Amino acid sequence: MTTMPSGLASYFETRSRKVEKALDSLLSRRSEEPNSLREAMRYSLFAGGKRLRPVLVIAAAECCGGMADQVLFTACAVEMIHTYSLIHDDLPAMDNDDLRRGKPTCHKVFGEAIAILAGDGLLTLAFELMAQQAKVSSKFDAPKSKIQNLKSKILHPSPSDCIEAIRVISSGAGIHGMVGGQVEDLKAEGIHINGNRQEAQKLLERIHRHKTAALISSCLEVGAVLMGASSKARAALKSYGQSIGLAFQIADDILDVIGDKKKMGKRGSDTKNKKLTYTALHGIEAARAQATLLVQKAHQALKSFGEKAAPLHDLAEYIITRDR
Amino acid sequence: MTTMPSGLASYFETRSRKVEKALDSLLSRRSEEPNSLREAMRYSLFAGGKRLRPVLVIAAAECCGGMADQVLFTACAVEMIHTYSLIHDDLPAMDNDDLRRGKPTCHKVFGEAIAILAGDGLLTLAFELMAQQAKVSSKFDAPKSKIQNLKSKILHPSPSDCIEAIRVISSGAGIHGMVGGQVEDLKAEGIHINGNRQEAQKLLERIHRHKTAALISSCLEVGAVLMGASSKARAALKSYGQSIGLAFQIADDILDVIGDKKKMGKRGSDTKNKKLTYTALHGIEAARAQATLLVQKAHQALKSFGEKAAPLHDLAEYIITRDR
Repeated sequence: MTTMPSGLASYFETRSRKVEKALDSLLSRRSEEPNSLREAMRYSLFAGGKRLRPVLVIAAAECCGGMADQVLFTACAVEMIHTYSLIHDDLPAMDNDDLRRGKPTCHKVFGEAIAILAGDGLLTLAFELMAQQAKVSSKFDAPKSKIQNLKSKILHPSPSDCIEAIRVISSGAGIHGMVGGQVEDLKAEGIHINGNRQEAQKLLERIHRHKTAALISSCLEVGAVLMGASSKARAALKSYGQSIGLAFQIADDILDVIGDKKKMGKRGSDTKNKKLTYTALHGIEAARAQATLLVQKAHQALKSFGEKAAPLHDLAEYIITRDR
Repeated sequence: MTTMPSGLASYFETRSRKVEKALDSLLSRRSEEPNSLREAMRYSLFAGGKRLRPVLVIAAAECCGGMADQVLFTACAVEMIHTYSLIHDDLPAMDNDDLRRGKPTCHKVFGEAIAILAGDGLLTLAFELMAQQAKVSSKFDAPKSKIQNLKSKILHPSPSDCIEAIRVISSGAGIHGMVGGQVEDLKAEGIHINGNRQEAQKLLERIHRHKTAALISSCLEVGAVLMGASSKARAALKSYGQSIGLAFQIADDILDVIGDKKKMGKRGSDTKNKKLTYTALHGIEAARAQATLLVQKAHQALKSFGEKAAPLHDLAEYIITRDR
C-alpha cells in the first residue's frame, strides 16, 4: 500500500484545484436556491472526495489535445453525479451509513428529506452544467495568453459534441449504468455465502461493471467526445475506463476489509451489511491478482496516446496501490 | 367543477396516446436494467397521470409550427421528471403518502430503496432521452407521407436547440426550480397559522412559483426552443406557462380541500401534513379569484399565435375547472 507518487499527486492537485474552485463558484454565486439545500449540497461536495472522476474527464481531454478549461463544467458535473449517488446510497433505506470519509453522512446532518433533495438537485444541476459547457468561456484559471491562442471552436466544445457528452454521461449514470448497478447491489445483500456460487459471481461482475465502472468509463469517454476526438481514441479511453473502473471497485472491496479505518472513514461497512464483494467471494489474493490484470489491460488501451497519457498510466497503477 | 370539454379531451387523447406509446416502448425494449427497477419506474409512470406536462411540450411545439413527433422524446422526458418528483415526494422522509391517485405509492409497493432509485433512474433517463432528441427519427406513429414531406432539419431539432432545451428543463426541474420549491415546501410545514402572515404569503408564492410553475413553464418554453421559434414566441409561451403553472397549483390546493376523494386519490393530504397552502392562507374564494386572474393573463400571452393556440386556450380554462 502506498500514497500517491509525487508526479501524479502534483498532476492531481493542479487539476482537482481547478475543479474545487469551479464547484465552489458554481454553488456560491447563485443566491436563489434555499440555503439548507445549498449547504447540504456543498457539505457533501466538499467532504473530502478524491475528485477522481473530474480529473479523469480532464486527463482524457488532455490526451486528445484539449485542456482542462474546455471540459471544466463537465468535470464538475460528473463530481456532482458521483456525490449525489453517495448521498442517496448512504440513506437509511439504502446502505444506512452514518459516516462517509470519517464525517457524518448528509442525512445525519441535514435530515433525510434534505439529503434526498440535495441528491436530486446535484443530479439535475449536473445536466444543466453539461448543457452550458457549449457556451461557457474559460473563466476559471486559464492563462489569458493560452486562451487567445486557441480558436473559439477549440475552446468551446460544439453543441453536437455536448449533446453526445450528455448522452454518454446519462447512460453511464442511469438505469443501464450506475443506478442499475445499485439496484443489483441491493439485490445481492446476503447471498454471497449461502447462494449459488456461480450465480453470485455473475451478479458481482454485473454490479461492479454497472455500479462503478460505467460512470468512470463514461468520464474518460466524455473527455474524448468533447474534444471531438476520433472514434478510435474514444474507444481506447472508454476501454481504459472500463478496466480501471473495475480495478477501482475491486480495490475498494479490498480496502473495505484491510484498509486503515481512519483513512477510509467507513471501513467494514460492506462486511457489516453482508454485501456481496470480490473479497468475500474470491479472497483477497485472487482479488488483487484480478485488479493487477485489469490495470495491465488499462495500460494496453493507452498505447496510441504516447507521452500525453502519462498521468493516466500513473493513475492506473495508483488505483490498486492506494490506501484510501 | 367540470370534466374536460370534448374538443380539448380529444386533443389531449391523441397527444397523450403518442406519449404513452413512446413511454411504453422506451421502458420495455431495453432488457439490461434490473427488472424490479423497470417495474417500479413503469408502475409510477403508468399510474394514471394526466400527461399534462408532455402534452404542453407538444402543444407549444405545434403553436410554433412543429408536430408532436419532433418533440416526443422531450415530452416523455418531462413526464419522467414529473414522475420522479412524485415518487421522491411521497417517500416517508418527505410527504409520507401511502396513496397517489388512489393507488399505493411506489415505495409502498417496491420498498423505499427501489423507489429512491426508480426516481433517480427516471431523472437520469429523462436527460438521456433529451440528448437523443437531436437524432431520433419519428418512429412513433407519424404518418410516413408527412415525414417524407418534411425536411430532415425540421424533423430533428438542431443540436444547439437540444442543448438549450436541456438547459431550460434542468433549470426548471432543479435547485432554482422544482427541487428548490420542494425544499421551501418542507420548510413551510406548520407555519401557516402561527407564523408571520406576510412572511407566509411570500414563502407560499415562492413555493408555488418554484415547485410547480417552473417545470410547467419550462415545458412550454422547450416546445418553442426545439422548434427554433423566435425569442418573442418563446417568451410568450414561457409567460403562459408561468401563469397556468401557478393557477394549476392553486387549483390543486383547492381540490385538496374540496375535491372528490375517489377522483383525487389523496384528498386532504396537505391538510393532514399541515402544509402551507393558498386555501389555508387566503380561503377558497380568494384562491379561486387569483386562479381566474392568472388564467386571464395566460390567454393574453397567447394573442400572437392565433388559431394554433386554441388547445392552450382551452387548457388554461380547464386547469381551474377540473375536478381531479
